[in-house]
Amino acid sequence: MKKLINGVDEVLSESLRGFGIAHSDLVEVSLEPRFVTRRAKAPDEKVALVSGGGSGHEPLHAGFVGIGMLDAACPGEVFTSPTPDQMLAAASAADCGGGILWIVKNYAGDVMNFEMAGEMFEGQCAMILTNDDVAVESSLHSQGRRGVAATIAVEKIVGAAAERGDDLAACQSVGERVNSASGSMGIALTSCTVPAAGKPTFDIGADEIEIGVGIHGEPGRRREQLRTADELVGELVEAIVASTGAGQGSEVLAIVNGMGGTPLLELYLLFDAVSRECDSRGMTISRSLVGNFCTSLEMQGFSLTLTKLDDELRELWDAPVRTAALNWN
Amino acid sequence: MKKLINGVDEVLSESLRGFGIAHSDLVEVSLEPRFVTRRAKAPDEKVALVSGGGSGHEPLHAGFVGIGMLDAACPGEVFTSPTPDQMLAAASAADCGGGILWIVKNYAGDVMNFEMAGEMFEGQCAMILTNDDVAVESSLHSQGRRGVAATIAVEKIVGAAAERGDDLAACQSVGERVNSASGSMGIALTSCTVPAAGKPTFDIGADEIEIGVGIHGEPGRRREQLRTADELVGELVEAIVASTGAGQGSEVLAIVNGMGGTPLLELYLLFDAVSRECDSRGMTISRSLVGNFCTSLEMQGFSLTLTKLDDELRELWDAPVRTAALNWN
Repeated sequence: MKKLINGVDEVLSESLRGFGIAHSDLVEVSLEPRFVTRRAKAPDEKVALVSGGGSGHEPLHAGFVGIGMLDAACPGEVFTSPTPDQMLAAASAADCGGGILWIVKNYAGDVMNFEMAGEMFEGQCAMILTNDDVAVESSLHSQGRRGVAATIAVEKIVGAAAERGDDLAACQSVGERVNSASGSMGIALTSCTVPAAGKPTFDIGADEIEIGVGIHGEPGRRREQLRTADELVGELVEAIVASTGAGQGSEVLAIVNGMGGTPLLELYLLFDAVSRECDSRGMTISRSLVGNFCTSLEMQGFSLTLTKLDDELRELWDAPVRTAALNWN
Repeated sequence: MKKLINGVDEVLSESLRGFGIAHSDLVEVSLEPRFVTRRAKAPDEKVALVSGGGSGHEPLHAGFVGIGMLDAACPGEVFTSPTPDQMLAAASAADCGGGILWIVKNYAGDVMNFEMAGEMFEGQCAMILTNDDVAVESSLHSQGRRGVAATIAVEKIVGAAAERGDDLAACQSVGERVNSASGSMGIALTSCTVPAAGKPTFDIGADEIEIGVGIHGEPGRRREQLRTADELVGELVEAIVASTGAGQGSEVLAIVNGMGGTPLLELYLLFDAVSRECDSRGMTISRSLVGNFCTSLEMQGFSLTLTKLDDELRELWDAPVRTAALNWN
């Protein structure tokens, strides 16, 4: 295993500590238990957004903690759910009187632990479950569809709603609307290696790709030969459109997300292909995000997310955000 | 070769087109000849910063075009210098009466072509040559040290100087000061594959690393076995300190730069190691950048850049910037 680390057991703590030093203007990092909170005091009565999940998907979620997005994130070990005590500590630190909104990707371990934290938390709380991965109906670690990169759209848009003063029920409602308006699907060219495992999560041939791969390397729809970027993008858009009902006349946010090991040169090329494919279907990409945002360690590959936008969702997407990974005014 | 592309000959044009669509609020992209300019009109008499070089290092340079950094960038084919006609066209488009400042990484092809463009350009112009790579004194494609990730610091800091109204000589001077105050060195875990070549640039064993690698995969100081992050960082800091004279009492900007295929989880862990190493030497990291900024396609590895800061350089680093890859207020 070729990784830039010290001991396998220290990977997460050392990385989080580095993250906290690099972004000390934006976040505070607790190492015991592990959670990240925004440094800027939130307005009284603001709904606090708390997310989390296994590590290895950076910048998700800690990279989205700050003003206008998440109030706190709980990183678990690589590809492993965080524990309820992390979530409770994060919620207590982030709570400013408006209640806690948990944002959870649909994986069995995450769902169980966030539900447990919700039961133990003594204030008002609610949950949004993201399940945007249209590739498969159920998977290794999930009952129902997996939650993947649309979680970024949910966190950004609900973050803006909370910042403008929406209450807990309204925040939950807009988040569920974003999740329902979204579909994602990914393709892997290579596997990735979890540090504690020491070997690749799956084997894949020199010219094979996994269509519909999960962000932990879970199987997708099928294994096949590498095809052109245009053909791959065409298949992803077709699958997402079939699931979300986006089509002729739809306005969408498009996220071309690298899995961690894909050069930006290729991600922008893929975005060009997505742009042409959407054009040909009469869909308008009014907002976009291209880069590595919901990754699988060093996996090569990408995912596409399309979220149908309306005036309110577009305005919330455009609202100011100040985090390590997204920053605009 | 496993790449997310259509034809090998279309990689750059399709990627640039996608970049232009994704960032149409910030940049305009010309495909014939190839150059990228900032969309927001620059103030009259502002010095225009024009950079460029081979592609495959994204987001360098096009990702740094916008307000407060580059006025234009000229992308060559992957790992190949852009041509003088690209540079001239970019300079003509970016010129607003204050002269052109070429920012050039020290590679023979780039230097020759930018010098030729400078001779052909009919207005006032000057050049900054970056040569921050302390690994080797000369290399495959360079006479003297190579220019690598400190180019980002030069482009950011000179961009701020130009935006505040410094004239051409002053901009050149501050840029040379940043370059002199900087040292960088990189380590590769894997090679990368230029699309037109179709095979890895170099071979490297399953547990070998290249210490002092260049951003095109050029040889560094030596090939050896993978060691811990702390040990690798210790060697890089030692080499940079020996070259720049940074040490006890120095204030520095630290850039932990991924080569393209390294997970953010590891880059933050490396930054933690850099932070501890600088602490132990009595150096203060007052500013930092952690991520993939000066890449080598999908290469796994990283580089460290340290730039000695003073009050003026720190203020110019902090000045607002609005580009695809760096964005703060």
